[in-house]
Amino acid sequence: MSELPLSALAPDSFPALSDIAGIRLSVGQSGMKYKGRDDVMLLLAQEGSTVAGIFTQSATAAAPVDWSRAGIASGNPRAIITNAGNANAFTGTRGVTAMTHYLSRLAEGLSLTDTQILVASTGVIGEPISGEAMASICETLVADGGHASWQDAAAAIRTTDTFAKGATTSCIIGGSVITINGIAKGSGMIAPDMATMLAYIATDAAISADCLDILLRRCAEKSFNAITVDSDTSTSDSVYLIATGAVDMLVITNPDSPEAKQVQAALQMVMTDLAHQIVKDGEGAQKFITVTVTGAQTDADAKIIALAIANSPLVKTAIAGEDANWGRIVMAVGKSGAAASRDELSIAIGGTIIAEQGERVEGYDEAPVRAHMEGRNIDITVDVGMRGTGQSTIWTCDLTHGYISINADYRS
Amino acid sequence: MSELPLSALAPDSFPALSDIAGIRLSVGQSGMKYKGRDDVMLLLAQEGSTVAGIFTQSATAAAPVDWSRAGIASGNPRAIITNAGNANAFTGTRGVTAMTHYLSRLAEGLSLTDTQILVASTGVIGEPISGEAMASICETLVADGGHASWQDAAAAIRTTDTFAKGATTSCIIGGSVITINGIAKGSGMIAPDMATMLAYIATDAAISADCLDILLRRCAEKSFNAITVDSDTSTSDSVYLIATGAVDMLVITNPDSPEAKQVQAALQMVMTDLAHQIVKDGEGAQKFITVTVTGAQTDADAKIIALAIANSPLVKTAIAGEDANWGRIVMAVGKSGAAASRDELSIAIGGTIIAEQGERVEGYDEAPVRAHMEGRNIDITVDVGMRGTGQSTIWTCDLTHGYISINADYRS
Repeated sequence: MSELPLSALAPDSFPALSDIAGIRLSVGQSGMKYKGRDDVMLLLAQEGSTVAGIFTQSATAAAPVDWSRAGIASGNPRAIITNAGNANAFTGTRGVTAMTHYLSRLAEGLSLTDTQILVASTGVIGEPISGEAMASICETLVADGGHASWQDAAAAIRTTDTFAKGATTSCIIGGSVITINGIAKGSGMIAPDMATMLAYIATDAAISADCLDILLRRCAEKSFNAITVDSDTSTSDSVYLIATGAVDMLVITNPDSPEAKQVQAALQMVMTDLAHQIVKDGEGAQKFITVTVTGAQTDADAKIIALAIANSPLVKTAIAGEDANWGRIVMAVGKSGAAASRDELSIAIGGTIIAEQGERVEGYDEAPVRAHMEGRNIDITVDVGMRGTGQSTIWTCDLTHGYISINADYRS
Repeated sequence: MSELPLSALAPDSFPALSDIAGIRLSVGQSGMKYKGRDDVMLLLAQEGSTVAGIFTQSATAAAPVDWSRAGIASGNPRAIITNAGNANAFTGTRGVTAMTHYLSRLAEGLSLTDTQILVASTGVIGEPISGEAMASICETLVADGGHASWQDAAAAIRTTDTFAKGATTSCIIGGSVITINGIAKGSGMIAPDMATMLAYIATDAAISADCLDILLRRCAEKSFNAITVDSDTSTSDSVYLIATGAVDMLVITNPDSPEAKQVQAALQMVMTDLAHQIVKDGEGAQKFITVTVTGAQTDADAKIIALAIANSPLVKTAIAGEDANWGRIVMAVGKSGAAASRDELSIAIGGTIIAEQGERVEGYDEAPVRAHMEGRNIDITVDVGMRGTGQSTIWTCDLTHGYISINADYRS
């Protein structure tokens, strides 16, 4: 397919990411699907690093997802090999054979066992991947020795992404400066519980594997698991968090210690930033939408309702049309299946209260809402009237002609 | 908004519907939203008729839905008043006041109690309806005396529908010829300016109220409850079935009797026909899609999976683009949440087996699939490999630029 135009919501530039001590990155061209651009990325972590991962909930998960889940569970992962353009999903035994072929060559080159290498593949589903093409580029990457930047890595893992996604932050833990870098890809097939999204986050902090896993799960709930583009869930979603321990500090082992909380806050910032960037690169996106639901019986109920609003094609097309058609929000609340009180429902858009106690407010003036709808950032707030403390925030984008164009033509 | 072009999937003409003895229809113009077309329809059933109804599951159901549910439960409904253009949904006490105002005038004109009149409203959500404008047109309809045809009635209840929808059949029950007529409207599952599905089915057969209710529910499961356009559920969906008993026959009271089964088969034909017409008028629809899922543990599981495929924006856009991108079907199966076996999954499109036992078949030739994708009717069959007897068929349409255009501009 031809190059897609840059998303209307793209940031001005890729942020400045410094190196993370203990991480080496390499990128290269496999020649499989894309011509003239990097499409393979190797991340190598120094010995003693800890690694956590979260994967798609799909029942038709790809072979690399099965492999990486087992790799993290078995203990000592050191590298992640990623390719873009072919998901090696639903490729049966042929897909597994191809993967183990290039993994064995890569393991040999890195002097690791193949179970120490994790795998992520993103792209078309159902087409066998070339084990030989991958093996060949793996050898090139090993020879390269790891001189790519984080920006190079972020660019290499893109599929329909129109910009490379990165985020970084630093904080001081017990007198030591630690840094967290993250990169991600994803633009369609995005739904909570991981959609076709891949993310790699690394820190030079020293954190035990168990603690790292807990921190990753906590932060995913309010970042990658709180975004949706089209409600479609990928076979390949993977989020990796690596702690190299290159910084001289006491190893963090207790996820509820003050140090862990500090890391968690910094990690949340990086992961939420990356999650927002994925939405802002949502296929055809023109508007960035924040849906906040309060007053539900539980957080889980609030999330179901927020997702019903965020995934409704009618809500998303109304926003694309800059139409303050709030009746569609009422509809989405009603269809969600979670408890909501029609007669105590309140709705605000852009801070303007439109409806309260189950009906439109007296003397409703649409002008400020219309003005808000013309902006890039749309805020929808709904109190579902159950008088509970349950709440949830979900981020999404509008549904435009661009989404249709991109997805009606993607494979060809 | 300007007139929408006729759906690409529209039938050649409205079928010939004869009268149903015991039913009188009237149509007229309220002057509320539409200019120069009928937008109100009154259906009057003769004394002794039985009536069954099925309504939206929405938690934010419209006032008319609450009213009609109670009216059917309380026993002796005789009339249904319907307006198009304003759903009188989420309009709080003002909406109820407006409705009871025009109902009291209509009841007086028809010499009925207001609880004998059922109400259906379809159109924009959240805008108060004019009780006075409705009362005025109700008086006109009463004076008219019921001379409209079924086609007139089908035309009057349209919102974004691009064609009027009707179906009819006859059969012989114990020597008597009975007729079943049906009309429906709907094109998006809901659009707060119109769209919602309403259906009115009437027969001159004599069927007890309890039996009628059971037959309606059985047939709805494989017709109106087996279609989806955009996964959005209206606040106002209503399906009515009326049996006037005008034909000289023994009253059918046992839903499992041979006579009831005969009526059920005929009713299923009419309701499935109407349901298909709604999909064929799906906003922007270019393709009529049949999704059949087999091999699931239960019918319920099969339906969840079939709906996941039918509602997937990525599947629907691929079909719009005539792209045999079957990997998206794998994705949709995986995300559904119902049990499926990745490694025993089979997929066929247009009768061509693409994947078996969890991977693409050897020597897969895309040509016949591509040819099938270029047609108007797309058949997708998935065996989910759970070796069960659960199966389900769901009908839907593709997701096109037309859907975006209609829904991004609809209210204005």
